[in-house]
Amino acid sequence: MLMTVEEAQERILSHPFPKMSTERLPLLQAWGRVLAEDIVSPEDVPGFTNSSMDGYAVLASDVQQATSDHPVALRIKGTIAAGHPSPDSVKHGEAYKIMTGAPLPAGADAVIQSEWTRRSEDNWVLALSPVKPGQNVRRQGQDIHRGDKVLEAGLVVKAPIVGILATIAREDVLVYRKPRVAIVATGDELIEPGEKLELGKIRNSNSYALAAAALAAGADPVILPPAPDTKEAISQRFSQASTADIILSSGGVSVGDFDWVKNVLSEEGSLDLWRVNMKPGKPVTFGTLHNRPFFGLPGNPVSALVTFELFVRPVIRVMLSVHRWQRTILTLPLYEPFLEIHDRRHYVRSRLVQEGEKLYVWPYKKQDSAIQTSWIGAEALMVVPENSGPYKAGDLLPVMLIPADV
Amino acid sequence: MLMTVEEAQERILSHPFPKMSTERLPLLQAWGRVLAEDIVSPEDVPGFTNSSMDGYAVLASDVQQATSDHPVALRIKGTIAAGHPSPDSVKHGEAYKIMTGAPLPAGADAVIQSEWTRRSEDNWVLALSPVKPGQNVRRQGQDIHRGDKVLEAGLVVKAPIVGILATIAREDVLVYRKPRVAIVATGDELIEPGEKLELGKIRNSNSYALAAAALAAGADPVILPPAPDTKEAISQRFSQASTADIILSSGGVSVGDFDWVKNVLSEEGSLDLWRVNMKPGKPVTFGTLHNRPFFGLPGNPVSALVTFELFVRPVIRVMLSVHRWQRTILTLPLYEPFLEIHDRRHYVRSRLVQEGEKLYVWPYKKQDSAIQTSWIGAEALMVVPENSGPYKAGDLLPVMLIPADV
Repeated sequence: MLMTVEEAQERILSHPFPKMSTERLPLLQAWGRVLAEDIVSPEDVPGFTNSSMDGYAVLASDVQQATSDHPVALRIKGTIAAGHPSPDSVKHGEAYKIMTGAPLPAGADAVIQSEWTRRSEDNWVLALSPVKPGQNVRRQGQDIHRGDKVLEAGLVVKAPIVGILATIAREDVLVYRKPRVAIVATGDELIEPGEKLELGKIRNSNSYALAAAALAAGADPVILPPAPDTKEAISQRFSQASTADIILSSGGVSVGDFDWVKNVLSEEGSLDLWRVNMKPGKPVTFGTLHNRPFFGLPGNPVSALVTFELFVRPVIRVMLSVHRWQRTILTLPLYEPFLEIHDRRHYVRSRLVQEGEKLYVWPYKKQDSAIQTSWIGAEALMVVPENSGPYKAGDLLPVMLIPADV
Repeated sequence: MLMTVEEAQERILSHPFPKMSTERLPLLQAWGRVLAEDIVSPEDVPGFTNSSMDGYAVLASDVQQATSDHPVALRIKGTIAAGHPSPDSVKHGEAYKIMTGAPLPAGADAVIQSEWTRRSEDNWVLALSPVKPGQNVRRQGQDIHRGDKVLEAGLVVKAPIVGILATIAREDVLVYRKPRVAIVATGDELIEPGEKLELGKIRNSNSYALAAAALAAGADPVILPPAPDTKEAISQRFSQASTADIILSSGGVSVGDFDWVKNVLSEEGSLDLWRVNMKPGKPVTFGTLHNRPFFGLPGNPVSALVTFELFVRPVIRVMLSVHRWQRTILTLPLYEPFLEIHDRRHYVRSRLVQEGEKLYVWPYKKQDSAIQTSWIGAEALMVVPENSGPYKAGDLLPVMLIPADV
């Protein structure tokens, strides 16, 4: 009996992961990080009632009858610019010229915009239209009241949040520390990208791809040197990895004779091996090692990234206390037929095609997990249920958006 | 006559922006950057024909008749592990035990997976099923041929691309330098987040929010101190900004008496002021200053971020030579009614609501551009055509996804 992806995610996430500790960062450095404090505003926003237009601060009752044929003349007492306190109050028959953002003078209850006025003699303005009380006025505290909880811990600090923090006088903010993810590739066949290739060897690409995926998930990757296929080497590398918050290995978990990862795990930690209803991706290995969450990912580069996306990224997001760790899922029409049928749920590497306002999902042709090039520019994983298909162009399928990573 | 957003974008992008210069970065530092070179593979991938399973390397013709009732016995010549060259060739009646990723020995043309075999005496294995030639075999060069152009300049370096670069022996890669975006907020009313508030003053939040939006767009923001409302101060600040690749100002472009930005621009550079069919957002100011693209953004924080999104971000992406600068646009059902009707196209700050596989757009209640808090957690701008509405729950509207920024 195969486990569903959702069951495996639930089992993994039911573990009591430690919450990350926090650090205080200047606003701009906090961009992209996760808020670790609720933010209460020490001030009203706006801090004072002000004009939302360039125009004239007036008493609305003075201009109730104003029209372009029968304008109402008001005596101009002066000009109020943004950044300067209003000098005096407005009484019946008076107006202050006022700039956008400038404080409304006492007495005034509305602003008539410049386009609806005509200047007559030096100190007189003609109102050509009525305004309602409060019109073109931003009231003190209308956006934020002093003492309001404005932002909640767990929010990702994007540009509008940076703006709000600055608005309410914050120069720095508490965010969660990025989880450190130690990455250990295993296998006698691995050489580094810069080394000379010999028969039987392949380049260690998983360490780099998984490190990039960890960056995209909001973690701090640490690449350890690959471990050859001996129990001692793997055990030693895992010990080195144990200062990190999460430990990943790639390779070394299949049924081959030289797969020592499981062996080391069951002796030095704990280990669950599951058969999950998914393709690509071999059995998912999850466990704990040196009291850290441990993931044994497949050695195949495509399978490694898909299992990272489905199982490791959620743990990183949960450890960061992000409100929602799930990806956005859309239902999109196929741009071309998709003919493959499999007995497991298939996560199909796909592009998105925009035609006007219509968005399509366009799977790459080669879905063999040995084909890394089918993931260049991929923006989504299309989710094809087991034993379903073939699908025609236009058929609707769920699509996981993977906007900036994996 | 109002210009459409698309016309304004086209006019801006028709300017001959300089292409960014390049820099060479180690793989992991290149994550999230834009490729500045086409990448040709110096090697075949896989580099040698190998097994995709743990099993036995055989001649397919030897096991053509094999069934579990009538197994075919093959003599085991040895074991081939990943990372080690295959010692010898396979002849009729022979097999090599072989691990995933290990090189296929000469003579063999298929691999029988372990599950379809039974070990008999020490050096014999029983094949319980036929295999086709090529089955469970990954052929040399099946993913990438030596000399293939694998990646094109203009791709954003995501995790799978990092993996491919490592696979084809790259330790570093040429990417475009991030455009430097100088940000100058203007206005006598501005004080910094850490300063004490006085009547009439507001905190400079735009510099920080725009800097964060620039980071999200792939640029390198430089915040200059805000300029008070004098021509000299603004002119001086713009001179300081001219070492950057793009210059942004916020505030100081409306019709108020104290708006010196336009003044300085028309004397020292060139300036176009357009009325664009959009809300929020005042007239868009685009020009050149000291031979750099210049944007005069509104002082209102919400308008500043929306105009950045629609006009500045595209320029950053084009200067970075990214293949596609447009955002993904979906057509989504409304989660709740949307009743506001405006005479301009309305970019409505919205959340996405996931219910199972169904995705909805959920606009924030307060869309007044003075309300910054309506953008906390926003993931999208819903695009409401001018003079349209009201809309019921379930009505379909176009939605611009803004996944990781603005």
